[in-house]
Amino acid sequence: MNLHDLMRQLQVKNDSKMVLLVADGLGGLPLHPGEKTELETARTPNLDALATSGVLGLSTPVIPGITPGSGPGHLGLFGYDPLEFNIGRGVLEALGIDFDLGPNDVAIRGNFVTVDENRNIVDRRAGRIGSDVGARLCEKLAKITIPGVEVFVRPVKEYRLVIVFRAPGLGGNVEDTDPQRTGVPALDPVGRDDASQRTAEIAREFLAKAAEVLKDDHPANYFTMRGVARLPEIPTFEEIYGLRAAAIAVYPMYRGLARLVSMDVLDAGQTLDDQCSRLEQVWNDYDFFFVHFKYTDSTGEDGDFPKKVERIEQLDAAIPRIMALKPTVLAVTGDHSTPSKMRSHSWHPVPVLVSAENCRTDACTSFGEQQCLSGGLGQFPAKYLMSQLMAYAGRLEKYGA
Amino acid sequence: MNLHDLMRQLQVKNDSKMVLLVADGLGGLPLHPGEKTELETARTPNLDALATSGVLGLSTPVIPGITPGSGPGHLGLFGYDPLEFNIGRGVLEALGIDFDLGPNDVAIRGNFVTVDENRNIVDRRAGRIGSDVGARLCEKLAKITIPGVEVFVRPVKEYRLVIVFRAPGLGGNVEDTDPQRTGVPALDPVGRDDASQRTAEIAREFLAKAAEVLKDDHPANYFTMRGVARLPEIPTFEEIYGLRAAAIAVYPMYRGLARLVSMDVLDAGQTLDDQCSRLEQVWNDYDFFFVHFKYTDSTGEDGDFPKKVERIEQLDAAIPRIMALKPTVLAVTGDHSTPSKMRSHSWHPVPVLVSAENCRTDACTSFGEQQCLSGGLGQFPAKYLMSQLMAYAGRLEKYGA
Repeated sequence: MNLHDLMRQLQVKNDSKMVLLVADGLGGLPLHPGEKTELETARTPNLDALATSGVLGLSTPVIPGITPGSGPGHLGLFGYDPLEFNIGRGVLEALGIDFDLGPNDVAIRGNFVTVDENRNIVDRRAGRIGSDVGARLCEKLAKITIPGVEVFVRPVKEYRLVIVFRAPGLGGNVEDTDPQRTGVPALDPVGRDDASQRTAEIAREFLAKAAEVLKDDHPANYFTMRGVARLPEIPTFEEIYGLRAAAIAVYPMYRGLARLVSMDVLDAGQTLDDQCSRLEQVWNDYDFFFVHFKYTDSTGEDGDFPKKVERIEQLDAAIPRIMALKPTVLAVTGDHSTPSKMRSHSWHPVPVLVSAENCRTDACTSFGEQQCLSGGLGQFPAKYLMSQLMAYAGRLEKYGA
Repeated sequence: MNLHDLMRQLQVKNDSKMVLLVADGLGGLPLHPGEKTELETARTPNLDALATSGVLGLSTPVIPGITPGSGPGHLGLFGYDPLEFNIGRGVLEALGIDFDLGPNDVAIRGNFVTVDENRNIVDRRAGRIGSDVGARLCEKLAKITIPGVEVFVRPVKEYRLVIVFRAPGLGGNVEDTDPQRTGVPALDPVGRDDASQRTAEIAREFLAKAAEVLKDDHPANYFTMRGVARLPEIPTFEEIYGLRAAAIAVYPMYRGLARLVSMDVLDAGQTLDDQCSRLEQVWNDYDFFFVHFKYTDSTGEDGDFPKKVERIEQLDAAIPRIMALKPTVLAVTGDHSTPSKMRSHSWHPVPVLVSAENCRTDACTSFGEQQCLSGGLGQFPAKYLMSQLMAYAGRLEKYGA
């Protein structure tokens, strides 16, 4: 029996309320050996109080050594094995701009490029055009029509765009057209199965028309296609856990990831305060709340140690408002580590804090990587967080007699 | 997606240098509860310094409770699931005498035995004949010819020998002929599939001729066959990780295990000093270096606690020479535990030390089992060591976006 079947079989309903507060990229590193991490440096009296009364641990997002993107990181937290449920790049890119992908959609990440008179690529990022230029070119491309296919073209940022083909029966198994180097033409789209050959044909037709439309738009006079993908077939969060789940996330990517598992995606406003207000408003309408805080990741990516510390303190300040709602279970964790020292996501295990009745309290008295190492939850794969939260919420029957 | 596909997909090349220093059977036990293990007893200032700046943990070679042989132990360290890649006993025995097995070879472990006039086995180890006797008898057996088959017969030690049949299409699925008791004749070789029935026929023919050749060599007047096996189909280390790998191991078994995953097996001399010299000489020619130190295991097998301590101190003394090369990643670990107290391999988790930039430093300040227990790497399956070393070497892309 696999993890999801076990959840389906054992889940029971009750009045419990569960909050999963994800501080993106929460885990960190000390700048120098022997020093403290961002989380250990931050003054977090509220989290420390929960660490004292609750239980800590460390989660491995995928397997040891693997650095996850936001997609696999969140799927793990939602209890989906990130190696089993693989989300294509095109889908993530579409989710990231709040595009509402459907089952008949094939999503493609595009990069504007510069081609010369022989159609050889001379710049794979089109001279890094501004987002305004990209947006204008996408509007032009969106006017292209392909019989029998709905076409959507959306700007992402600078030279990046998303193309979506909507038609029944299109396959998502199409090779990238980006040759990964300059001095050669873009590759022709090639489908790896019958349904995807149909997608490749549509892509070829679209690219031919696009070449014409963009011919005077040097340096962005063509584009390559990457990460062609369909929505993965993924069981819904509610079906697996029996939870009515709401996502309160500001950034499109995380709203998209929640939508991927069919959570209700609510208007979250712009700030953590807005998110807390929304949480309060809908408290009676759902069983499970995924609240996403972005800035612990973005400050880490910026390599800004003090700013990440500050953002963690801001997160800490929101804890009393959440606890005032008396959640049955509150979990505070990240989807991966983003050490300021590395300015990127990393593979390091992620701090986890669980506050609930019936925690087997450990000796930890503050929330930090070092303390988590001796926490009662130990080190565990992120995909087993949800089964534990379900247990703390009293929502799982005994397995076997 | 499995572990190897993930490595294939995510690996990138760079100029990093990785050293995997395997102290065979490194893990130990205290002689009495409350005392120290061999590793904890040893004075290891160099390893302790790395433990302070790096990160410790414990690895489980196979699964908890399983005592591995050298084959599974090393496969785990090389990142191959030892339960998925099973190396037959005959193959290991052949590797252990530096026999260069090829794809058309079936390797068989033989035991000289004593049979009576009714061909019943009366001694399953032929009175433990000396190695010189065994070697002389193997020379006689090597003269036996089988049409269409190349036959190799090599002595191992005392009553043990290796027989290799080389011919296209031979199967390795042949039952042991050792009846595991005395008073009965050896069993007839039985093949479990068509290709292995052919092997069994050859074995029968060879055994008939051998019975004649050995008839006057009491007490070693026959032999049994065990662990019939072909080389497993195993992807190469370089293909999985993109690493040019060199093995610097003195003992044949470990050279053979490295050859099994297609590492370059270098002349390693006789001592750890020789091995360090070789490492220095070829430092620019490879990305990854597997350096094997045998004597922590053999002293453990001898039940010689003080000698094992001494060998660990000898290992420690080699650390500065390795660190002088400035490896990007140095891992020091064992393939299994060999507690002197037990005089054998054991199932106990194995100490792991990783020294690299971007370690999340733990509180450990010396290299020992007790400290490893609170190390930042936690307890993990040995097959996940390589994915972590690849991460520390900066050789893995992010998984998913």
